Amino acid sequence: MPSIKDIEKGYFEYVKKIMDFEEAISLMAWDLRTGAPKKGAEQRSEVIGTLSSEVFQMSTSEEMRYYIDALTDPSVQDELSEKTRRSVAYSKKEYDKNVKIPEQEYKDYVILQAKAESIWEEAKEQADFGMLQPYLEKIVAYKRRFVEYWGHAGNPYDRLLDLYEPGVTVQMIDKVFGELREQIVPLVQEISDARERPQTSFLYKPFAKEKQRAFSLHILKEIGYDFDGGRLDETGHPFAISLNPGDVRVTTRYDEKDFRTAVFGTIHEGGHALYEQNISNELTGTPLANGTSMGIHESQSLFFENFVGRHFAFWEKYYDSLKQFADGQFDSVSLEDFYKAINVSCPSLIRLEADELTYPLHIIIRYEIEKALFNDGLEVGDLPGIWNEKYEEYLGLRPENDREGVLQDIHWSGGDFGYFPSYALGYLYAAQFKHAMLNDIPRFDDMLKEGNIKPIREWLTANIHQYGRMKKPAEILKDATGEELNAKYLIDYLSKKYRNVYQLV
Amino acid sequence: MPSIKDIEKGYFEYVKKIMDFEEAISLMAWDLRTGAPKKGAEQRSEVIGTLSSEVFQMSTSEEMRYYIDALTDPSVQDELSEKTRRSVAYSKKEYDKNVKIPEQEYKDYVILQAKAESIWEEAKEQADFGMLQPYLEKIVAYKRRFVEYWGHAGNPYDRLLDLYEPGVTVQMIDKVFGELREQIVPLVQEISDARERPQTSFLYKPFAKEKQRAFSLHILKEIGYDFDGGRLDETGHPFAISLNPGDVRVTTRYDEKDFRTAVFGTIHEGGHALYEQNISNELTGTPLANGTSMGIHESQSLFFENFVGRHFAFWEKYYDSLKQFADGQFDSVSLEDFYKAINVSCPSLIRLEADELTYPLHIIIRYEIEKALFNDGLEVGDLPGIWNEKYEEYLGLRPENDREGVLQDIHWSGGDFGYFPSYALGYLYAAQFKHAMLNDIPRFDDMLKEGNIKPIREWLTANIHQYGRMKKPAEILKDATGEELNAKYLIDYLSKKYRNVYQLV
Repeated sequence: MPSIKDIEKGYFEYVKKIMDFEEAISLMAWDLRTGAPKKGAEQRSEVIGTLSSEVFQMSTSEEMRYYIDALTDPSVQDELSEKTRRSVAYSKKEYDKNVKIPEQEYKDYVILQAKAESIWEEAKEQADFGMLQPYLEKIVAYKRRFVEYWGHAGNPYDRLLDLYEPGVTVQMIDKVFGELREQIVPLVQEISDARERPQTSFLYKPFAKEKQRAFSLHILKEIGYDFDGGRLDETGHPFAISLNPGDVRVTTRYDEKDFRTAVFGTIHEGGHALYEQNISNELTGTPLANGTSMGIHESQSLFFENFVGRHFAFWEKYYDSLKQFADGQFDSVSLEDFYKAINVSCPSLIRLEADELTYPLHIIIRYEIEKALFNDGLEVGDLPGIWNEKYEEYLGLRPENDREGVLQDIHWSGGDFGYFPSYALGYLYAAQFKHAMLNDIPRFDDMLKEGNIKPIREWLTANIHQYGRMKKPAEILKDATGEELNAKYLIDYLSKKYRNVYQLV
Repeated sequence: MPSIKDIEKGYFEYVKKIMDFEEAISLMAWDLRTGAPKKGAEQRSEVIGTLSSEVFQMSTSEEMRYYIDALTDPSVQDELSEKTRRSVAYSKKEYDKNVKIPEQEYKDYVILQAKAESIWEEAKEQADFGMLQPYLEKIVAYKRRFVEYWGHAGNPYDRLLDLYEPGVTVQMIDKVFGELREQIVPLVQEISDARERPQTSFLYKPFAKEKQRAFSLHILKEIGYDFDGGRLDETGHPFAISLNPGDVRVTTRYDEKDFRTAVFGTIHEGGHALYEQNISNELTGTPLANGTSMGIHESQSLFFENFVGRHFAFWEKYYDSLKQFADGQFDSVSLEDFYKAINVSCPSLIRLEADELTYPLHIIIRYEIEKALFNDGLEVGDLPGIWNEKYEEYLGLRPENDREGVLQDIHWSGGDFGYFPSYALGYLYAAQFKHAMLNDIPRFDDMLKEGNIKPIREWLTANIHQYGRMKKPAEILKDATGEELNAKYLIDYLSKKYRNVYQLV
């Protein structure tokens, strides 16, 4: 009979193999999104399918089950390191998630999902929810069944939230999103009525792509992104991706009529990448060597995008170099006017175009709808109506059609219910981290002004990045900030900042 | 019991899976050589190892053996298509090659190979053959044993030649290389003594990388490379690579002090890529959807590099546009002088820097040495001596040290014996194809002058490209040219061209 050490070794070799497959899949996905020739794309998708199916089989195999059973046996826990226990717990969670769904049902679902995503594209184009509705109804029916297969202690939607943000529940989100909504909705209204609005016309002047790229590279370097362990490429829908801890790539999109797309997009993805680049080397080759959740990941991208990149002190340092890369666009614009312009806020219908202040409301709307769909019997046919009502109530705008309404996002067509809340949780986490960071780094503003971002990044690494999946989101938050999730910090930050930008009393 | 149609279907699904794995491996290799960040390279190599090991296992599995046995059974041959028979024959050859070597021995060999390649790099740097010798001795010993495991009808070196150029033997090569050597050695000597030499100083003027890239893209498009099914990237050691028939990539290297590196390198790799891009769609997803051999592949790259790209008529069409991309470099250089300069010939020590005329001699030297090593008991310790003697005899130059002598190529350290002859076979094939093509396209020169390359490419597709591995090299040659391999065509081409460039009588 093998010793527990042998089993542990076998387990880590086995999961390393799975991770090797996943690295190959990730590279193929990166390649498809950054310049793979279109004629090879269909066959490439088949390769991704072939390797993904191998990963699925390995993750749910008898061999995996053997390792999980042996290594979760209570009698051996004392012999195992914390790393092993956490890693096996992660593998077990994935295993349970995957084996509980009948194989044929899952395959049918994957095919439906691909079909629904392509129908969605057409339905959006035509602004016709009716086209998508039958597919979406089936997707929701599958997801409702999956939740039953998986089982849930509280309510069904909790089970979906847990896929993206382990440990987070409807009860927790209701509280923080409720507080946020109560404070932000009137603030957005106040700003809409504000007498003075930032000048923004200079934002839309031509800024050559190559120069935007050069400035993006410069800023990535400044925030501490390691180019020996990554690269920057162009894409249609920007993302960051970790192939392995020494290869974490960033992508961005260039709009020659609006430099903000690339600059803030690059800083945002750079924040994601810094997280992955700074996970402890000790976790390499294990499933723990990734960010712990969607929400914590988003907290890092938003921290850099907003708390660093949209901060006045940051531009005190970098506005001059932006001017140098640009073609005279900012020559007659004061730093103060520039700062206000990049922090302009205005209610809008499209989530992806929303500003920092109104963005959480877009997420809260989606959360409330998803929750109603899974916990309260809301039907798919009711989605356009409830969507439009909520936009009118929270943002004062009513979509004129479904393209700018319920059809704008791909997530639901892909079955990704439970994912949206992570975006707003990321905002809340980021604000709470920032508040805690000020205790250790009281000269935060001065440091940004000096371009001394290193201590800020090191704080994030010490409290968040290094742990990878060794800690759950709630543990990270509690250990780093000393308290549970608290909406107060984001509310304070947004109120103070936007009252200042809009000179409200 | 499954029907033969079911077994055939199962076989093709199985080999498609292997090809999917190989596509993932190829993408990872491409990525490592075109810009993958260095910190992730070691882990990436492990992923390549993991997937390669899966490919090896699938190619030598019981399942593969079952398909091969069932589909090579004489009683079922009539029920199978030509495509199936050829594909299974290829799978069988790979299977036999791989299963005959004891697994542990092969693993030890792979490790030694990686080690020897890295020692080679250092030995070359230090110009110290003694450093590499013990490793090379082991590599040669392994290869000698492998040949015995595989078995051989004639002589051991034939077995190695067959790995790269199926069906080609020492007997065939001795004849054509012998004829070639007898004619080229004196011609090279005559040229060395020629009174007039082309002016070449203008070749070495600065030519910005971005503009070289733009011109390379232009020329690739002109020769018919399909950018919807490929892309051009920068690398250290250029190559073309087929990921799948819709994704065949080209790489090149830019030397800002010598535009020829990129321009002729791009045309060369473009020739390889045209082959892979024009294989019949009917072979997609089978092992037949690749070039049939190293030599036929090289014939396509050399056809475009030399018979197109170094042809006077080609530059009658494109010299003006080269001038436009360049920065005044050619303004006072006549087309005639330009043509002579890009066809300058001069004996040299380094194969990779050799010109069209002297290149085959570099290959013939390597062939003669390899043959002696495997058929005539030459020992590794004798390599530097015999190398230097042959260089003196054939090229009139003696290396001053092993860096510019026997250590210049990586091939032997990687165990690639039998590979070098393909390069010169490619020259011979290319000249023979060109001669045959003139029967169908007598206006060849005029067409180049008009930039009408399409009929030339279509001839190559009709006679070579489309077949992939459906035909062996000798079949391709015979069907396209009506005869066996014949050195006359290359000899005639080189004599005529270089007597003209050097105005010999």
